[in-house]
Amino acid sequence: VTKNKLKLASRISRLKASPIRDILKVLERPEMISFAGGLPAVETFPDFANFNSLKQTLQYGPTEGDEPLRQLIAERLADQNLHISPQQVLVLSGSQQGIDLVAKLMIDSGTVVAVENPTYLAALQVFNLFGAAFEPFSVAQLDNLAADDHPPGMLYVNPTFHNPTGYCYTESERQRLAKICVDKGKVLFEDDPYRDLAYSETCRTPICSYAEGDRWIYQSSFSKTFAPGLRLGYLVCSEQLLPYLARLKQAADLHSNRLSQQLVYQQLTDPANERRLHKLVETYRIKRELFNHYLERHLSDVAEWEAPDGGLFFWLRLKSEYPIDTRELLAHTLDLNVAFMPGEAFFANNEAAVGQLRLNFSLTNERQMAHGLATLGTAIRSFSKRNAEVA
Amino acid sequence: VTKNKLKLASRISRLKASPIRDILKVLERPEMISFAGGLPAVETFPDFANFNSLKQTLQYGPTEGDEPLRQLIAERLADQNLHISPQQVLVLSGSQQGIDLVAKLMIDSGTVVAVENPTYLAALQVFNLFGAAFEPFSVAQLDNLAADDHPPGMLYVNPTFHNPTGYCYTESERQRLAKICVDKGKVLFEDDPYRDLAYSETCRTPICSYAEGDRWIYQSSFSKTFAPGLRLGYLVCSEQLLPYLARLKQAADLHSNRLSQQLVYQQLTDPANERRLHKLVETYRIKRELFNHYLERHLSDVAEWEAPDGGLFFWLRLKSEYPIDTRELLAHTLDLNVAFMPGEAFFANNEAAVGQLRLNFSLTNERQMAHGLATLGTAIRSFSKRNAEVA
Repeated sequence: VTKNKLKLASRISRLKASPIRDILKVLERPEMISFAGGLPAVETFPDFANFNSLKQTLQYGPTEGDEPLRQLIAERLADQNLHISPQQVLVLSGSQQGIDLVAKLMIDSGTVVAVENPTYLAALQVFNLFGAAFEPFSVAQLDNLAADDHPPGMLYVNPTFHNPTGYCYTESERQRLAKICVDKGKVLFEDDPYRDLAYSETCRTPICSYAEGDRWIYQSSFSKTFAPGLRLGYLVCSEQLLPYLARLKQAADLHSNRLSQQLVYQQLTDPANERRLHKLVETYRIKRELFNHYLERHLSDVAEWEAPDGGLFFWLRLKSEYPIDTRELLAHTLDLNVAFMPGEAFFANNEAAVGQLRLNFSLTNERQMAHGLATLGTAIRSFSKRNAEVA
Repeated sequence: VTKNKLKLASRISRLKASPIRDILKVLERPEMISFAGGLPAVETFPDFANFNSLKQTLQYGPTEGDEPLRQLIAERLADQNLHISPQQVLVLSGSQQGIDLVAKLMIDSGTVVAVENPTYLAALQVFNLFGAAFEPFSVAQLDNLAADDHPPGMLYVNPTFHNPTGYCYTESERQRLAKICVDKGKVLFEDDPYRDLAYSETCRTPICSYAEGDRWIYQSSFSKTFAPGLRLGYLVCSEQLLPYLARLKQAADLHSNRLSQQLVYQQLTDPANERRLHKLVETYRIKRELFNHYLERHLSDVAEWEAPDGGLFFWLRLKSEYPIDTRELLAHTLDLNVAFMPGEAFFANNEAAVGQLRLNFSLTNERQMAHGLATLGTAIRSFSKRNAEVA
């Protein structure tokens, strides 16, 4: 009988598991060396020892976020040339929530969403869930984007220390992309969680600051510079979009955790915070150097990469002699207690093997880097040799 | 040019503002007496003075929630006759999130969702956003529900100290509703945030405990017994639904705040917690008595109600001599610094005036109750008189 067949919403057929979710149990092994996630180093987290819980903070609060925090976010963004009022700020339960809210705001089944290829996999997952039709673009070929004749839709970009590639857009690329969005009427959605993790001098001006007009959304996160467990981020957007996004936020979780809002506000206004952030960046700069060193030692014969100017990831392209599906490689290295993120999931159309992989360098210590990367290099060489023998 | 017209997702046309959101600014006046929200009393919140922040708690965590908390939730639910494994528990960023996730799981445009009439307004908002076709039902007329021939879809119910009516389903009503859902193949979604706020002996056994089968979801919240600012709740569901809901949760916000999870876990395992909860219920029982007293004094000529056996609300039905649109009444009483929740928003089809209103009794003190309810009574009488004169 039809009534006894469980019928889920049609979007659920597009609900894919994350490659990492599927191996979570394996990742929990104490001996596992994981380059897979984007986990900050625990030693960079702030100390909340002097946290004084105010009971009023535990009450329901405003959907848009606590006023002092919204005010502070608006002030700090002015330093980045993004001039907005506190009323354009929406505090988020982490920036993943911003992706969910913006997808709800913008995406019907078939809505065109321009994305870099590769791009942040969890954004692809959400856009896909809502039925997006992807239009991949490349910052190296913005002419193609300028020339296309797709319906305007939305453009999602992660221009500063890109996840997964680590790339940082130049100033002229930022200006060009903003102009394309404005000219074509695309809603520009800029995701900027890594901007404060800068190891070299680069342009980090938000693309949205060049996008005069009524359709832009900029978001960032406190996960990398404070702590992910607080689940706190924010978005700011052109004035007319905020009321919709605030209602969607209310429908999603009423408002964000108020302890987190207070803790982050305390940290942001603490004179010692700048010193802590400086130390945090130095910690990651050193880790990046170490990681690059062991990559050179163990993987320079099998892969190419550029050391990133910021962020938390190295993006490796396997040389053509190693045409490996990195999803299969992962299954192999997990047995050797080494995890990484296969590249395939970062592509809008990720069926084909792409021979690329993402390595996080912020979580592991030097001993783990040395051992894990040596293991990975050996695995790639033997995996490729085995494939050749089978063929 | 078409490209310059901003095109939002079609669901946004169904995105309604909450009647409370629209008056938030007014509610912030210090002199305002608000019976409008469902805010717990601040004095009932636990004391986190001995909270010792473990740095590892600040790292990213599992989407489903921290294991010790999931384990504990499963154990406690067994005491309510809901026997599940910890793997069937999904920790939520407040139970509003459960509504969002279940809507994503179940609702396409046109999916039939059976709802009580009235029912929780924020559930209506979310289901409506995803395009639900509402099938209103009444616990007093379950025969009608049993006899209908709608496609199975989903049934949403808030059986224990119902929001907004305060009603608590009897054991036989619970069993009957479970059987109807199973027989008809409906997914049963039971929302149970008030169960611990019981002022009389009533049956509170989850309806889901009677729903043998593969399609039920039960959710509750820590907002009423701990603190809303922590934004923490949970759902448990039939085994096959959990993986979908966990992926949807991951896409929505990765995982819930880990400080909150730890704080709630500490409280739940603290031997003093039972005493605190007992005191909390006593506080609300006294408030309910006081509120009923002032209702009798100031509103017995204009309205009827039953004192609720639990929860946070009185539901008033205006007598037929007072055929008032309570949305218009609210605009009037706000000028007098008294807020309440108009009844219209709780009905699946809320265009018509229903002459009913919801009053929260947990937040205000006795002086505010006395003054606020006297003001409300006067307002209803004068508003009705004015209407009569105009007509």
